[in-house]
Amino acid sequence: MKATVIYGPRDVRFEERDDPKIIKPTDAIVRISATCVCGSDLWTYRGINAVDQPAPFGHEYCGIVEKAGGAVKSIEPGQFVIGSFFASDNTCPHCHAGYQSSCEHKELVVGAQAPLLRVPLADGTLVPTPGVPSEDLIPSLLTLSDVMGTGWFAADAANVKPGSTAAVVGDGAVGLLGVLSAKHMGAKRIIAMSRHESRQKLAREFGATDIVAERGEEGVQRIKELTNGIGADSVLECVGTQEAMVQAIRSTRPGGSVGYVGVPHGVELKGEELFWTHVHLHGGPAPVRRYLPELIKLVWNRKINPGKVFDLTLPLDRVAEGYRAMDERKAIKTLLRP
Amino acid sequence: MKATVIYGPRDVRFEERDDPKIIKPTDAIVRISATCVCGSDLWTYRGINAVDQPAPFGHEYCGIVEKAGGAVKSIEPGQFVIGSFFASDNTCPHCHAGYQSSCEHKELVVGAQAPLLRVPLADGTLVPTPGVPSEDLIPSLLTLSDVMGTGWFAADAANVKPGSTAAVVGDGAVGLLGVLSAKHMGAKRIIAMSRHESRQKLAREFGATDIVAERGEEGVQRIKELTNGIGADSVLECVGTQEAMVQAIRSTRPGGSVGYVGVPHGVELKGEELFWTHVHLHGGPAPVRRYLPELIKLVWNRKINPGKVFDLTLPLDRVAEGYRAMDERKAIKTLLRP
Repeated sequence: MKATVIYGPRDVRFEERDDPKIIKPTDAIVRISATCVCGSDLWTYRGINAVDQPAPFGHEYCGIVEKAGGAVKSIEPGQFVIGSFFASDNTCPHCHAGYQSSCEHKELVVGAQAPLLRVPLADGTLVPTPGVPSEDLIPSLLTLSDVMGTGWFAADAANVKPGSTAAVVGDGAVGLLGVLSAKHMGAKRIIAMSRHESRQKLAREFGATDIVAERGEEGVQRIKELTNGIGADSVLECVGTQEAMVQAIRSTRPGGSVGYVGVPHGVELKGEELFWTHVHLHGGPAPVRRYLPELIKLVWNRKINPGKVFDLTLPLDRVAEGYRAMDERKAIKTLLRP
Repeated sequence: MKATVIYGPRDVRFEERDDPKIIKPTDAIVRISATCVCGSDLWTYRGINAVDQPAPFGHEYCGIVEKAGGAVKSIEPGQFVIGSFFASDNTCPHCHAGYQSSCEHKELVVGAQAPLLRVPLADGTLVPTPGVPSEDLIPSLLTLSDVMGTGWFAADAANVKPGSTAAVVGDGAVGLLGVLSAKHMGAKRIIAMSRHESRQKLAREFGATDIVAERGEEGVQRIKELTNGIGADSVLECVGTQEAMVQAIRSTRPGGSVGYVGVPHGVELKGEELFWTHVHLHGGPAPVRRYLPELIKLVWNRKINPGKVFDLTLPLDRVAEGYRAMDERKAIKTLLRP
């Protein structure tokens, strides 16, 4: 098969590779219906995370089970399935606590930007949809593999409640789906921080009631102004930089919550400042598996349409173009079809 | 009157000062029944926090209202009252949210190691007991002003629930009362981290089921061993150093909670490490006011006896000796009687 491989900064190739095989009896092979480009992989694409050797790329996926290993019990060929970027056994104490992305046996899923993908721990990782979905549902179902699950976790970690005020730092796909998640969880007021018109528009479609274009300390001041000097109840940090994290913490009311899902790069928090803010801080790699059953139901019943974040669709062999468009912020998120 | 003044590192004096007066109509003057030495003031005593000029010292208090300002409505002379080290109006949005130590009008209460104390915002700050307490209740009631309220907040912020496993980093008075709080909130297993025999003994009296003497990475490993490799559900950080904070975070299970109340000194948290731990982090200056009604009831009905942390009682004029004993860890906590 031909599949996506990253060689180094801004060097993504689509080239011949061996088809994936069942390695352990708990594996499954999935024929990919759709995959996409993740904002978190832009850190690697831009050379901020090093690439030691050419590596298969992509970790968001949905598709039809092609083959299941001998020990796989709950998943069978022909099912349409979605899984997280972290494979998990879904039976260990961390999984039982709902933190499958900290599973004692977790494994990163890599190489999803390909026609076929090996998924470890298939029973614990893959969740089948009620049937084979119609074509128009596929983009939204695909988002559940990472980007929507991550936005949802940001809102959950930020303790969004009915009637509350939420602010979202970051207008990438995760931030925008954080807006959608906060809306679905009942936030009355949702402040999206964005200075890009197309993203502001989508944020409003997803439920944002206010847009703040200012950043850093000015952004914090705008949030304070919009909340009678109090700060937001919940702030979703969906970037991962020092500026975004500090902005999120300072925009939160005392006793409020910051949910952070942007993979931190160079973030250092001063204990003393944090102490006096009185915020709750929670985040990390989203335990997508926890949310899959609920989110599949919401998409299947057309209650939410997170697939709207895809504003560029390309055939898989043009994957390099998909990365370029996101790197240059010409696309919010690129969908790839094998 | 004669009162306590700090002049600089290890220089605490008991000397003549003017009696406090009502300055604002919302003030009250309290005749102190008992006060004590706070671990957080040892930072100042040891010269780690600078002293620019001689300053009245002490912030833990209970006693009889001597005089109330013209605007004070709910507090009257003759009542026995307890208040937090932060005066608060108890009406602003932060107070309503239960974060009175972030009150929009908060003021530090200082000068409690004296016969008379001015307490600002008396209506919002002071909580009367059901009557004038018997002598033996006074030490426990005094702890509610800070040290017990702070240990309680640590357990609450660490989300201690019935049946859960809690670990406590720090065997000072706050840590020991964190043990008592975790016990009262229903923790099944309570691991106290201490290497001092007298403190281990009190920890066990307060409800600790296990003692860990190791610190740092070794301490973390011991907690992991004691919890089947999982980590504690709740960890109370009651020190404020980098080592204690990192130890607390690493001892917590993914999805578990760290409640931190040690005033951070030189603490810096790496965003990336925090991200992968999946812990909840919450803390800050304890909103003691929130807990006062509940804790007064518990002490009044003799359900808890936090006054046991006082292992040294001195007349107020020997306050310097009280600081010395705590600085040298010869006393867990010093009670002072005017």
